[in-house]
Amino acid sequence: MSASTMPAKAKIGVLGASGYTGSELVRLLLRHPHVEIALLTADRRAGQEMRAVFPQFSPFPLPTLVSIEGVDWKAAGLDLVFCGLPHATTQKVVSALLEQAPNTKVVDLSADFRLQDVAAYARWYGHEHHTPKLQREAVYGLVEVYRREIAQARLVANPGCYTTGAQLPLIPLIKAKAIDPDEIVIDSKSGMTGAGRAAKEEMLFSEVSEGFHAYGVGHHRHMAELDQEFSKAAGRDVVVTFTPHLMPANRGIYSTIYVRGSAGTSPEDLHAILTKTYAGEPFVHVLAFGQVPQSRHVRGSNMTFIGVAKDRVSGRAIVMSALDNLVKGASGQAVQNMNLMLGYPETTALDQIALFP
Amino acid sequence: MSASTMPAKAKIGVLGASGYTGSELVRLLLRHPHVEIALLTADRRAGQEMRAVFPQFSPFPLPTLVSIEGVDWKAAGLDLVFCGLPHATTQKVVSALLEQAPNTKVVDLSADFRLQDVAAYARWYGHEHHTPKLQREAVYGLVEVYRREIAQARLVANPGCYTTGAQLPLIPLIKAKAIDPDEIVIDSKSGMTGAGRAAKEEMLFSEVSEGFHAYGVGHHRHMAELDQEFSKAAGRDVVVTFTPHLMPANRGIYSTIYVRGSAGTSPEDLHAILTKTYAGEPFVHVLAFGQVPQSRHVRGSNMTFIGVAKDRVSGRAIVMSALDNLVKGASGQAVQNMNLMLGYPETTALDQIALFP
Amino acid sequence: MSASTMPAKAKIGVLGASGYTGSELVRLLLRHPHVEIALLTADRRAGQEMRAVFPQFSPFPLPTLVSIEGVDWKAAGLDLVFCGLPHATTQKVVSALLEQAPNTKVVDLSADFRLQDVAAYARWYGHEHHTPKLQREAVYGLVEVYRREIAQARLVANPGCYTTGAQLPLIPLIKAKAIDPDEIVIDSKSGMTGAGRAAKEEMLFSEVSEGFHAYGVGHHRHMAELDQEFSKAAGRDVVVTFTPHLMPANRGIYSTIYVRGSAGTSPEDLHAILTKTYAGEPFVHVLAFGQVPQSRHVRGSNMTFIGVAKDRVSGRAIVMSALDNLVKGASGQAVQNMNLMLGYPETTALDQIALFP
Amino acid sequence: MSASTMPAKAKIGVLGASGYTGSELVRLLLRHPHVEIALLTADRRAGQEMRAVFPQFSPFPLPTLVSIEGVDWKAAGLDLVFCGLPHATTQKVVSALLEQAPNTKVVDLSADFRLQDVAAYARWYGHEHHTPKLQREAVYGLVEVYRREIAQARLVANPGCYTTGAQLPLIPLIKAKAIDPDEIVIDSKSGMTGAGRAAKEEMLFSEVSEGFHAYGVGHHRHMAELDQEFSKAAGRDVVVTFTPHLMPANRGIYSTIYVRGSAGTSPEDLHAILTKTYAGEPFVHVLAFGQVPQSRHVRGSNMTFIGVAKDRVSGRAIVMSALDNLVKGASGQAVQNMNLMLGYPETTALDQIALFP
Repeated sequence: MSASTMPAKAKIGVLGASGYTGSELVRLLLRHPHVEIALLTADRRAGQEMRAVFPQFSPFPLPTLVSIEGVDWKAAGLDLVFCGLPHATTQKVVSALLEQAPNTKVVDLSADFRLQDVAAYARWYGHEHHTPKLQREAVYGLVEVYRREIAQARLVANPGCYTTGAQLPLIPLIKAKAIDPDEIVIDSKSGMTGAGRAAKEEMLFSEVSEGFHAYGVGHHRHMAELDQEFSKAAGRDVVVTFTPHLMPANRGIYSTIYVRGSAGTSPEDLHAILTKTYAGEPFVHVLAFGQVPQSRHVRGSNMTFIGVAKDRVSGRAIVMSALDNLVKGASGQAVQNMNLMLGYPETTALDQIALFP
Repeated sequence: MSASTMPAKAKIGVLGASGYTGSELVRLLLRHPHVEIALLTADRRAGQEMRAVFPQFSPFPLPTLVSIEGVDWKAAGLDLVFCGLPHATTQKVVSALLEQAPNTKVVDLSADFRLQDVAAYARWYGHEHHTPKLQREAVYGLVEVYRREIAQARLVANPGCYTTGAQLPLIPLIKAKAIDPDEIVIDSKSGMTGAGRAAKEEMLFSEVSEGFHAYGVGHHRHMAELDQEFSKAAGRDVVVTFTPHLMPANRGIYSTIYVRGSAGTSPEDLHAILTKTYAGEPFVHVLAFGQVPQSRHVRGSNMTFIGVAKDRVSGRAIVMSALDNLVKGASGQAVQNMNLMLGYPETTALDQIALFP
Repeated sequence: MSASTMPAKAKIGVLGASGYTGSELVRLLLRHPHVEIALLTADRRAGQEMRAVFPQFSPFPLPTLVSIEGVDWKAAGLDLVFCGLPHATTQKVVSALLEQAPNTKVVDLSADFRLQDVAAYARWYGHEHHTPKLQREAVYGLVEVYRREIAQARLVANPGCYTTGAQLPLIPLIKAKAIDPDEIVIDSKSGMTGAGRAAKEEMLFSEVSEGFHAYGVGHHRHMAELDQEFSKAAGRDVVVTFTPHLMPANRGIYSTIYVRGSAGTSPEDLHAILTKTYAGEPFVHVLAFGQVPQSRHVRGSNMTFIGVAKDRVSGRAIVMSALDNLVKGASGQAVQNMNLMLGYPETTALDQIALFP
Repeated sequence: MSASTMPAKAKIGVLGASGYTGSELVRLLLRHPHVEIALLTADRRAGQEMRAVFPQFSPFPLPTLVSIEGVDWKAAGLDLVFCGLPHATTQKVVSALLEQAPNTKVVDLSADFRLQDVAAYARWYGHEHHTPKLQREAVYGLVEVYRREIAQARLVANPGCYTTGAQLPLIPLIKAKAIDPDEIVIDSKSGMTGAGRAAKEEMLFSEVSEGFHAYGVGHHRHMAELDQEFSKAAGRDVVVTFTPHLMPANRGIYSTIYVRGSAGTSPEDLHAILTKTYAGEPFVHVLAFGQVPQSRHVRGSNMTFIGVAKDRVSGRAIVMSALDNLVKGASGQAVQNMNLMLGYPETTALDQIALFP
């Protein structure tokens, strides 16, 4: 194909480029043949080059970081924007953006548009949703479940990292009524990048290294998202037990999930359901029965590994999943969503294999 | 007290001194005012100095490592021996030792004498117990439960690291019938020293760092020990779900335990039971209700921290414990047992505070 | 281009695929559009699938591992072989291979063909070189220095990781006679993957984590390679001081290099020489004067970052380089060599950006 | 000895108890038989319990943290105060304290009183010293060099961690005129706790883990301290090359020091000088010639390990030292100073052996 007939590259914006999901988006998009990074915002670092914020990009030309307030969304003419801003600001920014530039598509990486029930939103976040109309428009971006809807969407709410790791193994089992939805215990372990790049004492190397702990025990906000999707899958209210932990590693969400099979359903049956569900999926891989995933084997890739084992307590099984919180748990899944929304092959720029060791 | 009236120090032997529990025993015993390290064995390193095996001991005088086969137990005249040998060899060594030197006391750190039911032993280990008579004599060395029996014992079976972390919070709750013993899920995470010093590919830094995984899912041998002690506490058969994991840290056992309170028992009640049980214990500390322990805050100390939190699923609670697998989970508890067996104050040489950061 | 006119992919073999340089080659080659992995050998793991040895490859089809002894090099019809075997065996294997299949090209990742002077080889390795003729044929594969020779070569000796990190900054300065070759001190720090995948006690996570140490002080074999290339660049004998260290990280070679500028040459001059030398190089990036490279910013990429700073001791400068020992320090550079040898664009399959954090 | 005749314990204050040197002082002092922690200050955490700031102290009774401004130094009646405050505030606090309570002794852990030449101070710190009179009184607290002076001092300036690691091996060699003082290159690597507990982005786990880098290249303030002590030892001006690095570990200062022996002085001679100098020292241990220290083998202890090896460049040697930056590099050395100043045996409360692994 000659250069003259080559379709123009899609113009992409990354809001919140100085955070880890931002840098991860840039890492992936720089190698995407059909897109061009046209805008990078980072309020506190506005005016700086990306290489000052993330030196790994030093050899690559990238737009200078700008403040989000100065952006003219209409003039920017962006095809798609990734929004990696904190909760609260997100709704306002996306709302203004879509008003000025209604043809720009948005993949939002915050939790702001994930809860379809605005009452649930208000309950978990302590205030009303600012843009209930956009909330209704938003599509929940778990590709393996909502692929068709995402391809048509203008606004996609990218799922959380913990919840992706819990939903990928559990949604098919709940839908198949293969497990008791009232007996699900999810014990999740996250790498430190899941906590973002904020300079907090408890996230210092010296505080984190050589140790392990739970947090948000009994009341973590991600539960709202699990409630919504598990209840939808079950056709009735489902409330699970979920405990997040922080482990001394940069990347990885590892979930150990304790389930009880429905009457007559063996752990092997659960494994068969998952294997069949994900047979054709490029980014979900079910290991042989009894095999155990490891978070290190998906690091840096968009892959989720799932394992199923038999518990010695009769009728119970242990399901494990591993993904990279910054890739399949955030920016990789966001690019997967973008590929669907812009009509590119779903795996474009996501074929990088895990970096191990 | 003049030197002439000072009681002789107890003569102590450490079998298997080239492993981590061995070095940890030496670390603690070197600072114990009433004992003298008189014998160190390490078959593969026999003839070497301890400093060649563990350079941290370079400045300290210690006996040369010898092979266990050459030891004359009678002539050695040891007051107490710590046995940190692998499964299988242990029973033979302890049996020979006690035959030759019946007045020597033994704290065994292997799993060999932990199962009082020799049938259970045969079932879990695939062969008959070699010394059922010694097995009957052995006292299970969980000090907080069996303090009185240990003080009288000649042979103590030091508990495992995972099982100590699970028993300390659960035994009082099961005894009080405050939780449903059929709904216990124990999700445990161990530092790498728990896997010992064997040169195995899967334990290399490059394999372990930056990752996390479960292992022994559904069939870990430590379950036998839990079955025995939980069933004894409950007065009936108890079988729990238990999953061990390896985390990229040197030390620490962190257990997240999911329980359902008995009718009318709240998470706060569970916390109250534990607080009361451990009020006077020097090495078990129950945090305020809702507070979460961290493995890093007990590193290098003989302390166990316990936390209790409310689950959002009604009637359920989440109990967490943290200990150092090499100290309270092995060598520290072994010294605690020794102190009781030889009549020293229980905390002697164990008062070191956690090394954090 | 229609499939029928598409040139066949080059058939590639990887010898020693169960090691880290082997897995890293597979990671890179699986994404190379013009090659096909046709052979994987691993003697101890022969008969196993690659996914059993490196689970990150589970979703990808790859040849079963075979023993090197059973390979018929002629029948295999390989275009190029990467040889990642240990010292000693390498010479024999490559010699047999090239005898049977003289048209197959070889990139050898061992040290076996790096020393052009067979007397130097014998001195450093304690025995005669087995194939001096092949040794004479071999081209030293530091692309930025020998690009033209490599493109014509049948046998390329891929440089060592430490030496690549030292040569890239020093060769241009020595060639330009800008520094005193008798006053070079190289203090290098390596991640643990540089030590390979052998199961050795001193490489266990518990031994390595939370610590740092030098090794091979005063007599590391990599010095031979430095002597050869630095002497060639200087036009006279050069002997440098070099100390390797192990750091608790998986990847990275970080070299802090102390030099004295020649009369009238300032640190800024040294920086200017390097900037000019590497202006057009895709995989060597010279930071602004005074800026310090970090090993984490090149992790997983084929990039080398170089920094130059002024020492407070008049006339002296500190030059720092950072690269990923498994990529630019081994498998990435090997693929770069392959691209040249097979006539592909040099950067093919090597454009992955560093994975940070 | 009956309680009534037992001498009262010395009353100790720790200023800046919410930092790592503060917590390390508390860890050591809690086990000191002759002192009582009577005051803990921490301005930002005033009013909180120490257990809220450092949970490892949860089981131990300690004074509530107070603001330094509210302290009445006279009424406090402290025997000795450890001052772990940042540069700048330190001089004012110590000056006020000693005015109000002239009999209280002070060990200052900041850099404020280390430079005896107030002109040098002004040059390195960019402003005049606020209390030149106290500066003149202050004794430099490197015990192995100034033991006698320290025992008489009221105000001791505890040395820095990097500089302790460089001085212990170099001072005896410089004093003996065994090395050329103009050719010293010190390449030092520090664990992250050396950077303190401040919440800075570049100190986050995700930023630090899996990487390595130099900093302060060519102009680190610690050089002032080295200049002073090395010049004093040499009897003439000495300026060394020194580069600090950060490594992904919590504790440890590892220094690789490149020296040229004076005419006729071999590396073995250097080793002999160090071995003889430190033969009777409890906290400096010189390894056998050619042996290499490791930072992990001194972790948590007050020990410094020193190794000497021969370089292959004729006449040159490589000297290595390893210490724990928080113990011998800060709080341990401070307690060692306190023991001397208060007349206790120098090793009291410092006999803890390194925690490895």
